[in-house]
Amino acid sequence: MGIGIDLGGTAIKGGLVNTQGQVLEERTKLTESHRGYQAILEDLVELINDLLEISPNETIVGIGIPGILSGDCGTIVSSPNLHWKNVALKKDLEVRLTQKVLLVNDATAACIAEASFGSIFKKANAMMITLGTGIGGGLILGHKIITGAHGVATEVGHMVMGENFYNCGCGKNGCLETFASATALVRYCDMRLKQGISSTLAKEKILNAKIIMDEAKAGDVLALEAVDRLAKYLGMAISNISDLVDPEIYAIGGGLAYAGDFLLDKIRTATMKYLTYPDFAVPEIVLAQLKNEAGIIGAANLSHYIITRK
Amino acid sequence: MGIGIDLGGTAIKGGLVNTQGQVLEERTKLTESHRGYQAILEDLVELINDLLEISPNETIVGIGIPGILSGDCGTIVSSPNLHWKNVALKKDLEVRLTQKVLLVNDATAACIAEASFGSIFKKANAMMITLGTGIGGGLILGHKIITGAHGVATEVGHMVMGENFYNCGCGKNGCLETFASATALVRYCDMRLKQGISSTLAKEKILNAKIIMDEAKAGDVLALEAVDRLAKYLGMAISNISDLVDPEIYAIGGGLAYAGDFLLDKIRTATMKYLTYPDFAVPEIVLAQLKNEAGIIGAANLSHYIITRK
Repeated sequence: MGIGIDLGGTAIKGGLVNTQGQVLEERTKLTESHRGYQAILEDLVELINDLLEISPNETIVGIGIPGILSGDCGTIVSSPNLHWKNVALKKDLEVRLTQKVLLVNDATAACIAEASFGSIFKKANAMMITLGTGIGGGLILGHKIITGAHGVATEVGHMVMGENFYNCGCGKNGCLETFASATALVRYCDMRLKQGISSTLAKEKILNAKIIMDEAKAGDVLALEAVDRLAKYLGMAISNISDLVDPEIYAIGGGLAYAGDFLLDKIRTATMKYLTYPDFAVPEIVLAQLKNEAGIIGAANLSHYIITRK
Repeated sequence: MGIGIDLGGTAIKGGLVNTQGQVLEERTKLTESHRGYQAILEDLVELINDLLEISPNETIVGIGIPGILSGDCGTIVSSPNLHWKNVALKKDLEVRLTQKVLLVNDATAACIAEASFGSIFKKANAMMITLGTGIGGGLILGHKIITGAHGVATEVGHMVMGENFYNCGCGKNGCLETFASATALVRYCDMRLKQGISSTLAKEKILNAKIIMDEAKAGDVLALEAVDRLAKYLGMAISNISDLVDPEIYAIGGGLAYAGDFLLDKIRTATMKYLTYPDFAVPEIVLAQLKNEAGIIGAANLSHYIITRK
């Protein structure tokens, strides 16, 4: 059994997870981040203690965080969703609990869940890429997660892939997530519609990624152009990642992954065009399997994926 | 003490390396790759046995290879320099020796040498980038080398960085080594000279990277433009690598590194422009320290850097 917490901008979700990856007990509180750090800290302690009442012998609590952790994984350096900067969450929780507290980026938590029970089960070298409003990632090499010297590893959404017609929220131009996220799809179609291109998308008052994916499946020329562009840049990014760390498998998750094989086939085709060694070094590319509970499941299994040696 | 072999296209160099990283005994044979695999295999055995006569208690022999290894690091999948494809060098040597044989890509061997005794001494998370005719690399994460599921990790020279005016030898367009290698420098200047740009380089019959670096230091406009372009793309690549694995330090080696601080300052400046978190996640960028013997020293220390668990 393990305790995993998914600390999100909307809700704090905690669960007891068994060794088959099932969430046996779940507790939820609204985050309401406007209340500030101390209030959320107390809520976290209360929620963890609720779970410990049911399973008192737990020695570790894993927590997935929507933000950047320090290199030692003890401090949240920055979390735009929670409006936190430089909060020592690990220490602040450990003085209030008898358990050891482990923190991890939420995208890496989802990757651990997939490696523990899902699409990349027991793979030694695997990358998960989550395509949502932005692009996140988790990377496992030699069965261990990669968090980086400064805690900013697997920020794959900000790899620069070329020039783009709008800047990324991070301030740079050409970030992968401005080419291949749900936001990127919408912005590209909006831009092309303003140029006067004919498309069934023109009738929509507000575009979203699901509408664009559905219209692409139905054959709309602009929607297809947008999805092909997304797949092209994602294929280029996957090839570049393979040039650096050569995973055996990629899991595609996040909201856009609901487009299923339609999107997956395009990503696979684009990746093959950019791979340096398509004859003998082709990674599998699959859909992530776990859904809403992935954050809890990954956080509960975090301790198995940490490099302990310094 | 350890035995390290640097198997190159021109020479087979082997040495006994002590725990301070000094090569105490060295033996060299010409590779003469036209003789074929069997002849070179026998030469390797002879050279290793010569070293074993001096140090009979060695249990491991490490060998750096100019090519791509299989995922299990036992077979040379491809070595253009040696004209080899799919040769089972590890097995073929182990039946002829009583020692265990470990193989590694030569760029990774140089990286291990730098981590053992040079510019990235004892760093847990470090990347070495070698700028020569092409671009190679070695990556250490959690004190272990990353070789990849298919053995093609750290082929950083083939990360696609944008469109370029000539194709890479690998068949792709836009590979990092077409922007930032010695070859790239020369081709860019040749192209600009043909366009009629005025430059002191125009007086050279045959350009090379050293001439271009020297003229850039002397203030020639075209040479400076070429070096700045190289630094820009290398900065972008370093930033992208940091987005994925976040090393604490980069070591720049290879022929171009002889340009020293002049080049290093430009690479640092360019990297800062592309880093996603320049406020709190800035890697060090330094020059590699070890020269000709790096391959031997790295190969002799390979066993300390291998992930043993499967």
